[in-house]
Parts: sequence; structure tokens; C-alpha cells
Amino acid sequence: MSGGLDSTTLVALARQQKFEIYGLSFDYGQRHIAELQAARRVAADFAVREHRVIRLDSAFFAGSALTDSRLKVPKNRSSEAIGNNLPITYVPARNTIFLSFALAWLELLDASDIFIGVNAQDYSGYPDCRPDYIQAWQTMATLAVQDFDKPDRTIRIHAPLLEMSKAQIIETGTSLGVDYSRTLSCYDPVGFVACRACDACLLRQKGFAEAGLTDPALGTDFSP
Amino acid sequence: MSGGLDSTTLVALARQQKFEIYGLSFDYGQRHIAELQAARRVAADFAVREHRVIRLDSAFFAGSALTDSRLKVPKNRSSEAIGNNLPITYVPARNTIFLSFALAWLELLDASDIFIGVNAQDYSGYPDCRPDYIQAWQTMATLAVQDFDKPDRTIRIHAPLLEMSKAQIIETGTSLGVDYSRTLSCYDPVGFVACRACDACLLRQKGFAEAGLTDPALGTDFSP
Repeated sequence: MSGGLDSTTLVALARQQKFEIYGLSFDYGQRHIAELQAARRVAADFAVREHRVIRLDSAFFAGSALTDSRLKVPKNRSSEAIGNNLPITYVPARNTIFLSFALAWLELLDASDIFIGVNAQDYSGYPDCRPDYIQAWQTMATLAVQDFDKPDRTIRIHAPLLEMSKAQIIETGTSLGVDYSRTLSCYDPVGFVACRACDACLLRQKGFAEAGLTDPALGTDFSP
Repeated sequence: MSGGLDSTTLVALARQQKFEIYGLSFDYGQRHIAELQAARRVAADFAVREHRVIRLDSAFFAGSALTDSRLKVPKNRSSEAIGNNLPITYVPARNTIFLSFALAWLELLDASDIFIGVNAQDYSGYPDCRPDYIQAWQTMATLAVQDFDKPDRTIRIHAPLLEMSKAQIIETGTSLGVDYSRTLSCYDPVGFVACRACDACLLRQKGFAEAGLTDPALGTDFSP
């Protein structure tokens, strides 16, 4: 749970499917620490059974503009530029690490389903948001948990946003009653206000425009 | 690098194959913190290019006898018992998490090879030490790093100990000049001395006996 559009819509979809929800967020030294506050708001709104924030060794994620304050988050890029290069905001092996912790928690809970809000269409150049990656991860994870007691155990990864456009995600969430005024998507907030110029802000703006809706969080100051 | 037999032999094998070695260890709240001291000794002995110890959120690994002091590490189990049940010393998703951090470092280093000291024959019931798991992980990891700039990039996982017996591992290391007096394998040391009764100690004793060698670390007090 990042506190943004995708993971919040994902929680609404999981709830609609009657799953008992355990929410996982990560503090990996990201610049946009305001996102963790948004994640906590959303977790409370949806009354998730438990919400954990795992602190990861931020030194390991150096070299990405999301975590390294010496690097500049790109602003006002065109849609083509967003879609066709591995961006400087890429964090090495991020989804692989996040999913690994989800797998550990799943084992402790004796659960079998993981929901992840990856999105291929708007994936902004991240290789670990693609369908073939998600499929391969599920195969690996199933082999990782099939022990002597549970030889037929299967892990199911749900990535219902994978093929959706940002507009479709917003429409889906809106139809499920998601209050997007509680969410924050920005990579590089100015204080606690979205910058409106990073890739995440541009994709969000485009999504609301295409859905014919107004972003209820636009301009909101999320200061605690 | 755990400071034990397997990972130390692994480092010797990687060095023999002329790899430039970056060593990774994890502090995940394991009872056997003495192993990290052994790992540092071994890293220094082999002059690895860089040795990192990643601290992981130990709350996430509760419920295993390796990390939870309220649980007892099993002692003096038979070979059959060791091989045929998921042991209480199993740590959820441990190798999956460890490998994910290796993948992140690999991306930062622009490297392509990961060595892991998993061992199927003596794997003591851990599902994430099996060949099919390792193969699936490699497939997943390759998909995770193939970005636009490097569509043909491939990750290679080396698990040269996978099919070896503990005796073969010891013989291999001995032929490569490994000094096993510097290593510690115990799950539950008494102070800084191996307990000689946990699964790891029993497998180590059996290995040295079958190799017709004496364990040079036996009875050593590794107090700092």
C-alpha cells in the first residue's frame, strides 16, 4: 500500500471479493515519505485487519531519484518519454523485494493470495511491472512454500490493474466508492502537496482527465 | 555468507572461477549472531571486494526457532527426522528475501551472477533449497532486470553445492585450501562454542566423519 491511486483501488477490489486484508507498506528511504501517511489513512478507511510498515535498509536503494536527494526527479516529461525508458526513479529490485516480504507474511498467516497494484500499460518503464514477471514470480513463490506438509499449496498473485489504463483504474475505484481525496501519488511532493510535474503526477492528471473526473486531492496539503 | 561450511566453500569456488566477489550477509535477529562474526572473518580471509551486512526487520521472522528465543532449537535428531519434516528452524521466505537483496545489489553493480550455497541433499526440509525453486527464481530475476536498455540481460544463479553431500562440500573446500577452523555452523551456540547437537552441528559432524577429516573448529570458543 503506497497511499496512491493504484494500491488504494486494489484494496477496494480485494474487499469487494471478500478477502480478509492485511496491508503491507515499505519505508525504504523514499523522498515521498508523505506516501506512508496516505497509506495509513487508506488502511484505516478500509479497516484492514493489520497494516505493517516494513523498514528497509535505505542504503541499498541508493542511486534512484526516489531515494537519493542528490538526484533530480524528472519533471514535465512527455508521455513517450515516460513510457520508453527506464526512468531514474527506478528502484533496483523493488517489487521483487516487496513481494518477498509479502511471501514471508503470507507464510506466517497461512494465507495464499497476494494482491499487487502493478500496472503494465502505465508502467513507466519498470521491468518488474510486466505480466511475464508477475507470472514468473508466482511460479517461484509456489515452489518456495510447497513443503512436506503442504505439497499442493499454491500461491496466487492477483494483479487486477495490470492491463487497466489509469482512467480505468479511477473509474473502477470510483464505482467501488473509493475516496481518492485521501490518496497521494507524487514522487516529489512540495512539502505535503503533490508537485503536479513528476511522472506519477502527470499520469494521475491524465487518468482523471480521461475518466472525465476531477482529482479531489488536487492541491490538497497533506501536512500531518 | 553465513560464516558456515557451505557459504565459505562457495566463496572459494567463486574465487577459483575468477569472479570478483561481493559478499552479502543478513542480520535478521537470528539467535546465532556469532555467525555474522564468522562471516566477517571469512570475508576478510578471502579479501572479498565488499562485504555488506543487511539488517532486516526481525519482527517479520518471528515464529522460527532460529529467531524466537521462546522456541527450542531441536537437538540430537536422527538423520531421518532431519530430512523429512519442515523444521521449526525454518524461517519464512528466507532465501527468497535474501536473493531479492542480492538482485538489488547486482543491479547497482551491473553484475549478472549470483552464487548461493543452497544444498538439496542435506537441505533439512527447507522448500526454498530445492533445484526447481532455484531455477524458477533465476527465470523470475531475469525478467525483473530486462529493461529497454538491456533486453537480453540474463541473471545466472550458481548453486554448485546443490547436489553435493556435506562430505563432498568439505572435500571440495579442503582441496581449495579453505580453513574451516574459521567457520561456525551451529544454530544455537553455547556462548560462542558450537552446541554439537542441533541439526546444523549434526550435519557438519557427519560431513567431516564421512570425509575422513577432523573438524578443525570443533570445541573452538569464537568469543570476540
